[in-house]
Amino acid sequence: MKEFFKIINNRKTIREFTNEKIDKETLDEIFSALMHSATSNGLQQASIIRVTDQDKKDALAEICKQEYVSRMPELLIFIVDNYMNYRLIKDNNVDFDAESNVDIFFQGFTDAVILAQSAVSLIESSSLGAVYLGSILNNPREVIKVLDLPELTFPVVGLGFGYPNQEPQIKPKIPMELRVFENSYKVFDDYKKTFEDYDREMQTYYDLRDANRRVDSFTNQVIKKYKNPLELRNEIIKIAEENGYKF
Amino acid sequence: MKEFFKIINNRKTIREFTNEKIDKETLDEIFSALMHSATSNGLQQASIIRVTDQDKKDALAEICKQEYVSRMPELLIFIVDNYMNYRLIKDNNVDFDAESNVDIFFQGFTDAVILAQSAVSLIESSSLGAVYLGSILNNPREVIKVLDLPELTFPVVGLGFGYPNQEPQIKPKIPMELRVFENSYKVFDDYKKTFEDYDREMQTYYDLRDANRRVDSFTNQVIKKYKNPLELRNEIIKIAEENGYKF
Repeated sequence: MKEFFKIINNRKTIREFTNEKIDKETLDEIFSALMHSATSNGLQQASIIRVTDQDKKDALAEICKQEYVSRMPELLIFIVDNYMNYRLIKDNNVDFDAESNVDIFFQGFTDAVILAQSAVSLIESSSLGAVYLGSILNNPREVIKVLDLPELTFPVVGLGFGYPNQEPQIKPKIPMELRVFENSYKVFDDYKKTFEDYDREMQTYYDLRDANRRVDSFTNQVIKKYKNPLELRNEIIKIAEENGYKF
Repeated sequence: MKEFFKIINNRKTIREFTNEKIDKETLDEIFSALMHSATSNGLQQASIIRVTDQDKKDALAEICKQEYVSRMPELLIFIVDNYMNYRLIKDNNVDFDAESNVDIFFQGFTDAVILAQSAVSLIESSSLGAVYLGSILNNPREVIKVLDLPELTFPVVGLGFGYPNQEPQIKPKIPMELRVFENSYKVFDDYKKTFEDYDREMQTYYDLRDANRRVDSFTNQVIKKYKNPLELRNEIIKIAEENGYKF
């Protein structure tokens, strides 16, 4: 299975796809394999909405502020799903303890990302390409509306996939010495200096989203993103509470 | 790459391992491949602590209330890491906007789970076995202490792995019709009835953690878990705030 390592070591986010449809058999194989994913406490508190309706795709593209979302051959939204178990308890006439909501929310959030990344691995090992859409959290309220999500659910991340129609460069990543530590978190003396080489390497990378110019240094990317937070992205907890959670 | 699907369709959580050490080359291949994982906004806001110190393993086993944690051949803790970028900004003498903390926390949480599940796929495709340790969240404060985690970090999930020394049954999972929906969330009329078959199937499964008896129905598992929340697991947000986040 060195083959899988080769795939991962060459992985790239794919944002443009051919018109070729993924056949039903391949999709079913992916969904069926996904159900074997690990899950917190065995409670399986995450679900998947496959979006095929063009109006809904367009609505999500608007939320994501990414036009290409409306053109995804396949588009999945992974959600925290505590509604299912809540209803299972209720329909068995057992009182539901609302105090446990923070824990089950984070269990479901973890389950949803495990499902999403399991999907990415299955997709990438099928010669398909994928793009994560964290941008659905630009407006969680609107995603809840578009997908008719009931109480005690919450959108986590989107995933577009299909047959690749672009070949991006492999994106330079932070060296593992700065992200994998032994026994204790390692604090460096001077992060400006520590990141100099990576900053330089990042500037040799051409992002296909804007093929004409090199990307900014990692440091400048971090500064821009941290200094310009998107308002609704900072209301995740508030919006989860509106949707039935009690934090 | 049908091979990878075969692995996933036969995947089992492995909790008992042989004494065989995983060689440094294999570990480095895994960590190095992991660095290619997708990450929210490219900001790489998650890190890994590899725990090799026996005292720390014992301390984590106590937090997890799982004795076998202290015997894991390899033990990784995946954390939200906004400290790195925070320091990068600070060491470049730029003001840090503390208001963006909910968003960056959830970005980092997502990154950490993506890393963890990427690790699981790499591990399982290397004929190794793995077990998720969500139980580190039984006491996040203590994990922060044991691993010397700085402000603006947070433990997400643990992962033990090694060469398998047990062969569990494949655990029955909820049929995909109940977890994969098209365009809208699908609400069923009667969850008690909808889960009858799965409840029955689950009772044919023998959990190796207690080899002498069948496991409970899924419905009863859910009721037990939801009715008996662990106190500190419901303080995730409070403890994250103690560690520098402003929700």
